[in-house]
Amino acid sequence: MALIVQKYGGTSVGTPERIKNVAKRVARFKAQGHDVVVVVSAMSGETNRLISLAKEIQANPDPRELDVIISTGEQVTIGLLAMALKESGIDARSYTGGQVKILTDSAFTKARIQSIDDENMRADLNAGRVVIVAGFQGVDAEGNITTLGRGGSDTTGVALAAALHADECQIYTDVDGVYTTDPRVVPEARKLKTITFEEMLEMASLGSKVLQIRSVEFAGKYNVKLRVLSSFQEDGEGTLITFEEDSNMEKPVVSGIAFNRDEARINVTGVPDKPGIAYQILGPVADANIDVDMIIQNVGQEGTTDFSFTVPKNDLPRTIKVLESVQDHIAARSISGDDKICKISIVGVGMRSHVGVASTMFRTLAEEGINIQMISTSEIKISVIVDEKYLELAVRVLHKAFGLDQVV
Amino acid sequence: MALIVQKYGGTSVGTPERIKNVAKRVARFKAQGHDVVVVVSAMSGETNRLISLAKEIQANPDPRELDVIISTGEQVTIGLLAMALKESGIDARSYTGGQVKILTDSAFTKARIQSIDDENMRADLNAGRVVIVAGFQGVDAEGNITTLGRGGSDTTGVALAAALHADECQIYTDVDGVYTTDPRVVPEARKLKTITFEEMLEMASLGSKVLQIRSVEFAGKYNVKLRVLSSFQEDGEGTLITFEEDSNMEKPVVSGIAFNRDEARINVTGVPDKPGIAYQILGPVADANIDVDMIIQNVGQEGTTDFSFTVPKNDLPRTIKVLESVQDHIAARSISGDDKICKISIVGVGMRSHVGVASTMFRTLAEEGINIQMISTSEIKISVIVDEKYLELAVRVLHKAFGLDQVV
Repeated sequence: MALIVQKYGGTSVGTPERIKNVAKRVARFKAQGHDVVVVVSAMSGETNRLISLAKEIQANPDPRELDVIISTGEQVTIGLLAMALKESGIDARSYTGGQVKILTDSAFTKARIQSIDDENMRADLNAGRVVIVAGFQGVDAEGNITTLGRGGSDTTGVALAAALHADECQIYTDVDGVYTTDPRVVPEARKLKTITFEEMLEMASLGSKVLQIRSVEFAGKYNVKLRVLSSFQEDGEGTLITFEEDSNMEKPVVSGIAFNRDEARINVTGVPDKPGIAYQILGPVADANIDVDMIIQNVGQEGTTDFSFTVPKNDLPRTIKVLESVQDHIAARSISGDDKICKISIVGVGMRSHVGVASTMFRTLAEEGINIQMISTSEIKISVIVDEKYLELAVRVLHKAFGLDQVV
Repeated sequence: MALIVQKYGGTSVGTPERIKNVAKRVARFKAQGHDVVVVVSAMSGETNRLISLAKEIQANPDPRELDVIISTGEQVTIGLLAMALKESGIDARSYTGGQVKILTDSAFTKARIQSIDDENMRADLNAGRVVIVAGFQGVDAEGNITTLGRGGSDTTGVALAAALHADECQIYTDVDGVYTTDPRVVPEARKLKTITFEEMLEMASLGSKVLQIRSVEFAGKYNVKLRVLSSFQEDGEGTLITFEEDSNMEKPVVSGIAFNRDEARINVTGVPDKPGIAYQILGPVADANIDVDMIIQNVGQEGTTDFSFTVPKNDLPRTIKVLESVQDHIAARSISGDDKICKISIVGVGMRSHVGVASTMFRTLAEEGINIQMISTSEIKISVIVDEKYLELAVRVLHKAFGLDQVV
């Protein structure tokens, strides 16, 4: 007898047949005596279809109106899933974000949840109903429809679990858990039974697309027990995201390897090595609303220094343009970009207490003749930028070097 | 300087290109200094797509959840139209039924409007914005999404015009007005400049699909000036639906001819000719939620009588089944159905003051050898049931007989 929040992504509800399967799974939990709240995404492809439609009208769609349009994707799914449950004899009721209500700020297309009213959901749960909530959406104080940004349905799931003090938040997706790395790149990749929140945050932010990073932050903040599972397997316990570091002595130092092909590198060379130069370079980039990820500044020589950073690949041309417009001002010798790069990161809380992790990483790459272009470290991760063509090779040799292919 | 409510149907907003054209038309009215409230339907085909999706889950979709699903069609259109207006530099804001709010009862899939809150719309109009409202939908007192039934967007338009005391409610459709009859059947059919509300009600209820009947009733009740126009013509004044009968002496006695191929006839013969028999026959039919249209009971002979009525063609098999289950109880000699029939009606307020209209109709049909199976009359219309195969012929000869092809 527990209260479980389950979130199903777009692939899991991609067809009427799959929605019926979700209903069957929900029915099994219900039959076990659990209370179930289900959060669903739009059917796969639907959000993109709606965005394309909007872009046929406006190249840069008005954010308020875009939210009105794209929030319909989840609204359709909640109705369909409620029907599927009723068809199997289980009472259910659907809720849009506004009906719950999930109150957000007014930052259309990337709103943040401010509060959740649990009254209606509680009443339905007490009446034995399954509660179905549209993910990804909310309503602001003026009653405008808002959306939480791509992947926001995970955040809805975690936020509902927090508001309802649920025993567990289960994120159903098309993979059966969190892996040591992408099995498409390394067939020996293993599923992790547990991963810490901090590791998951690093994995998520580094391009492991299992969970949206905000939902992981949210779960950490509100102590929500989070589990990633496959919606296409009958059983399987998935990967549990834990708060405590594993006390298992045998736990490997590195838990996983994440990678990302979606960044590009910018080099700004020969800028004066003086205070404020980083701001002069990155200020205009931030003003242009371009996300900067890794930032490296080399030690200067002869009064000048070189400055490198990464941006989303799509934003490379725009970034170069922005920088060229301030090139004279920042007195840079050259500005160049490279989008044939990738980022590879090893992640693990064990790094805190183990030395030599970085040198093992660098040696392993060197032995394969892979040149490292940039390095960035945090307490529990080391990221490197290398030539895109080495991605698969680098991930495979690192996976082996850190013993991730061995059953623990 | 007037306040105009414009309603655009599914065909008028069927593609992004057409939505842009609607925005252009709205912009023209705005440029003339008018305040404009726009009501839109779902893009053509969208409601059917959503209903099919629902039926893949549940053969008889749960009404509450069906409304959650199908209301998204209009929600997408309001966002797109608001964007199209903003793209042409006109400030606009979209509203779902719930956001307005349009309060309805809780009769899902066929809700009735109870009240409309005009506060937000007024504020937007005062701020110079075009207000865009999703047709066909509302919200009940508990916050559940409701829909008004097929064609409900017309009703939304008229209801908003009434609530806002608009100067005119313009219904844009794919025809340029109300015709004396369907031009596809009679090429000589003429567009009417005006038609009375009563005539329009008869025309609408008899299968002339220009306007939804409830919206006409609503307009009559709240004295809303209603005009039917084409969304595909630049100019054109359409057909105005008036409250006063035309004082024009030359106005023909018959204003138009409506027809309907969607009914079937049921014959119940040899039932005891005693009080209560009509209720015993039609009670079970009503209980089965089957709409009955024309009802004829012949004068009885030898203590028994024959009873005929029409139902929607789709409901014929079900009606027969219902009646067979009570055949012994009502002591009927036979129960039979015929779905190869059609209904043809002549409509006109002039009938009130003119005699001989019925005999002209019957003579005209007789001259063509068309047998009349049933007759039903009201103050301003005469309907007959004839063999389906005579439909086009009957409409054509009646159109000519009543001088409807002559320019007035």
